[in-house]
Amino acid sequence: MNYCSNCGSEQLVKKIPEGDNKPRICCENCGTIHYSNPKMVVGCLPVWEGKILLCRRAIEPRKGYWGLPAGYLENKESVEEGALRETLEESGAEVDIVRMHAIYNIPRISQVYIFFLANMRGPELDPGEESLEARLFELDEIPYEEMAFPSSSYAIRKYKEDLKEGFKAVHLGAWTH
Amino acid sequence: MNYCSNCGSEQLVKKIPEGDNKPRICCENCGTIHYSNPKMVVGCLPVWEGKILLCRRAIEPRKGYWGLPAGYLENKESVEEGALRETLEESGAEVDIVRMHAIYNIPRISQVYIFFLANMRGPELDPGEESLEARLFELDEIPYEEMAFPSSSYAIRKYKEDLKEGFKAVHLGAWTH
Repeated sequence: MNYCSNCGSEQLVKKIPEGDNKPRICCENCGTIHYSNPKMVVGCLPVWEGKILLCRRAIEPRKGYWGLPAGYLENKESVEEGALRETLEESGAEVDIVRMHAIYNIPRISQVYIFFLANMRGPELDPGEESLEARLFELDEIPYEEMAFPSSSYAIRKYKEDLKEGFKAVHLGAWTH
Repeated sequence: MNYCSNCGSEQLVKKIPEGDNKPRICCENCGTIHYSNPKMVVGCLPVWEGKILLCRRAIEPRKGYWGLPAGYLENKESVEEGALRETLEESGAEVDIVRMHAIYNIPRISQVYIFFLANMRGPELDPGEESLEARLFELDEIPYEEMAFPSSSYAIRKYKEDLKEGFKAVHLGAWTH
């Protein structure tokens, strides 16, 4: 941020506003406090006859690598709506949410992933512009070495644990490297 | 937003950028696309000997009304860290997270509440500047008529259901009025 989005001034300083305890970008001209907050990435772990749906990214970052269908939650959307929209956009799959499955924090870049376990209504796929391909993988075929982000690998590993041990609670993970 | 925060120009237009499918605020001068995304509110449902901890708000909106300790997730924070911080700040209570309890969407204002079920380490309370008081309530004493926001009432109702029926999955709710 170089200019105040409210008044256009360059008089921006990072300071702790009165009554707050964290530094914010504050405009010395008009007094606006510019808050910045983490973003949510919402997606599904879609299952069809024991197989898991993955999409291969057609866009950077990590173009060509695989992941669960997921993307930024949009304004005026619920997390469930966002997860269904991203799944449809990236793979063409229509799914029904079974339950919330995992939260995966990436605090270094202020991102929070929210994954839902979902049943696919059929095996038909029609990947959109953001995907090079969409494919169903057997659980022992997951291309862990070619995954775009650790969030998808985490969600799939925890799903396999749930299959063995039964679901107990939403999985809470974090990328802390 | 009146001015581009990157270049200071007033030439801002709402349009769908190339390769996107949603209108964004775009700067016609420098090309910056200004994304806006929902915010997360994170908090706890703290329990001590069967009683639930509520805080009475010392700040607007809804000053004087009750709610579970919760607040905006900050950058560089995990959702669990944020929920523990808000609980400590608003009530003085140190808690241990049991599991994720509920998500409550308020799409109209682009907010997503995330609540954790948590055990208090002791009954001592020391409400901070944001709370007029903090108090433990028996389950049949919850002041539903004096609650600040519907998210807290939702989380408490679902907790009572879990006590009766056992925990099955994270509760997914929404304020759609």
